[in-house]
Amino acid sequence: MFDNTTRTELSSLGEFGLIKHLTENIEIKNTSTLKGVGDDAAVINYSDGEKVTLVSTDMLVEGVHFDLTYVPLKHLGFKSVIVNLSDIYAMNGHPKQITVSLALSNRFSLESIEELYSGMLMACTKYGVDMVGGDTTSSLSGLIISIAVIGEAEKNKVVYRNGAKEKDLLCVSGDLGGAYMGLQVLEREKSVFKANPKMQPDLEGKDYILERQLKPEARQDIIKLFAALNIQPTSMIDVSDGLASEIMHLCDQSNVGCELYEEKIPMDPQMFDTAKEFNLDPTICALSGGEDYELLFTISQSDYEKVKNLPDFTVIGHMTKKESGTNLVSRSGTSHPLKAQGWDALAKK
Amino acid sequence: MFDNTTRTELSSLGEFGLIKHLTENIEIKNTSTLKGVGDDAAVINYSDGEKVTLVSTDMLVEGVHFDLTYVPLKHLGFKSVIVNLSDIYAMNGHPKQITVSLALSNRFSLESIEELYSGMLMACTKYGVDMVGGDTTSSLSGLIISIAVIGEAEKNKVVYRNGAKEKDLLCVSGDLGGAYMGLQVLEREKSVFKANPKMQPDLEGKDYILERQLKPEARQDIIKLFAALNIQPTSMIDVSDGLASEIMHLCDQSNVGCELYEEKIPMDPQMFDTAKEFNLDPTICALSGGEDYELLFTISQSDYEKVKNLPDFTVIGHMTKKESGTNLVSRSGTSHPLKAQGWDALAKK
Repeated sequence: MFDNTTRTELSSLGEFGLIKHLTENIEIKNTSTLKGVGDDAAVINYSDGEKVTLVSTDMLVEGVHFDLTYVPLKHLGFKSVIVNLSDIYAMNGHPKQITVSLALSNRFSLESIEELYSGMLMACTKYGVDMVGGDTTSSLSGLIISIAVIGEAEKNKVVYRNGAKEKDLLCVSGDLGGAYMGLQVLEREKSVFKANPKMQPDLEGKDYILERQLKPEARQDIIKLFAALNIQPTSMIDVSDGLASEIMHLCDQSNVGCELYEEKIPMDPQMFDTAKEFNLDPTICALSGGEDYELLFTISQSDYEKVKNLPDFTVIGHMTKKESGTNLVSRSGTSHPLKAQGWDALAKK
Repeated sequence: MFDNTTRTELSSLGEFGLIKHLTENIEIKNTSTLKGVGDDAAVINYSDGEKVTLVSTDMLVEGVHFDLTYVPLKHLGFKSVIVNLSDIYAMNGHPKQITVSLALSNRFSLESIEELYSGMLMACTKYGVDMVGGDTTSSLSGLIISIAVIGEAEKNKVVYRNGAKEKDLLCVSGDLGGAYMGLQVLEREKSVFKANPKMQPDLEGKDYILERQLKPEARQDIIKLFAALNIQPTSMIDVSDGLASEIMHLCDQSNVGCELYEEKIPMDPQMFDTAKEFNLDPTICALSGGEDYELLFTISQSDYEKVKNLPDFTVIGHMTKKESGTNLVSRSGTSHPLKAQGWDALAKK
């Protein structure tokens, strides 16, 4: 069918390269489109009022993003909503509505889809979001979930990826790498189970990292805190693909460099110990493991006093001139260029 | 994995039954949600101004909604946008932005995705819509396209499915059944080609119905005409699943009955002749064939003078008391209950 003489593999571009390539020539036609492709959400302004509309979408594919042999459908439903809400919080906005499109193979019964929906609706209730529409169709293989989220923000409070300035402080909420290590544990237990179905899964002492993987939360609380403390981040992104990759996005779009301090990267002891148990470097897990759904943001130094004693914020570095590059300063004090080894949905597996 | 003791097949509910079942207990939490599940688009109001935001989404799955052996990717891209825009026009609104999520197997090259995108962007340009975001990921089999569309409407001009009144006139734009007959021709040529790959496809004299199937348009012109003629339809829906099925939706949600006149159903001669050639009843093709993306709407009798001479509007019936039922009045004058044999994405194939 494709009689092209050239054939370029999608994996050679990667997900971000592909999106950039496909969307770089788009010209915005409507004055209501304040921000199109290239941030966590699009920003739309229909009313000339103080509020803008935010829109984002994420697609989850069975066998690529989730494995139903160990992910309960209710958790999957919850998480599939959370990953979308997180994109709206990353704009300093509040999600208000979602639409849900599902493609389902005939392997799924009504009861199984009810489970999935119950998790989705649980997330909606918890975050005050309405499910307002969607589409349901069949698929030839497996489950595909596509959610679009619509939210609102104060027009002058929206935070983009491109506003970080030299000397701004780089901060992150919560801790990192947990969701990735939770996934490693689940994958290990799956292998054990495959080898011997009578073996009981050994998940003891892994509750925190399993919850990070199976039932993550979105950081609505951080956005509320920004409002309460009158902090206006200069740039923000959510950590879905891994810390290193997200820092590169902020630096790239803000046209700045960065010094990230290894010793400052927040890690939970359970994630740290489990990484060691798996002979993995905890720092690399924190830098490259995705799905933590924490918020990575920059603030002006003048806001430091407001955040320094907050338990759930960590200053992990600062922004520099673009020419200085994007660097990781190791515990020993040496500086290395940061490598984005984030999860790439189009990478050859 | 699913250890449910009961197992209800999704096909036993059908697409509309499933959606109804899953969404009937949803409670709206945000005052900004004016209309949730149950119409062509959700209606959202963030600003308390005169404009509301409309949101809709559609998912297209390879092997279910399209067959790449005869659908060019550029046409598929165009059509995938059109089907979404149509939902916004069906609310008497104007689409302004779309997001596009794709899941792709590694069978697709960059060049093939560029083709798909070029069709999408062509539709965006033609209809004045901005592509503002999306998601791109891999799939284990085939192509899945999920598009969300965001639009705007005057708050007091939005047309829902539930406003038809007894004695209102039932009208439709354009003609019906063409997209379905175009599909039959394409399927026939595919079979011929499979049997003998040296055979050239015989598509002569089928240009109109092939275009209806492969490159449909959305009825932006009709919405503009409503504004120009100061017509406020009392209810509206787009014809995506088949005329009969859409009439049932209007009647069901408006709590009225209907008399539909077979002789009034607009058909193109090419669709009529091709149906005969395939030994199909043209009326059944027009009633049950989907994908025409025409607008089906009701207007007050007092608006009849405004529409009676318009070439692209046909009055095909009128609304009655609910107790009278939903009926098709045949050419011979006998009345039969209308059967919705619309396309069901969850039906067992």
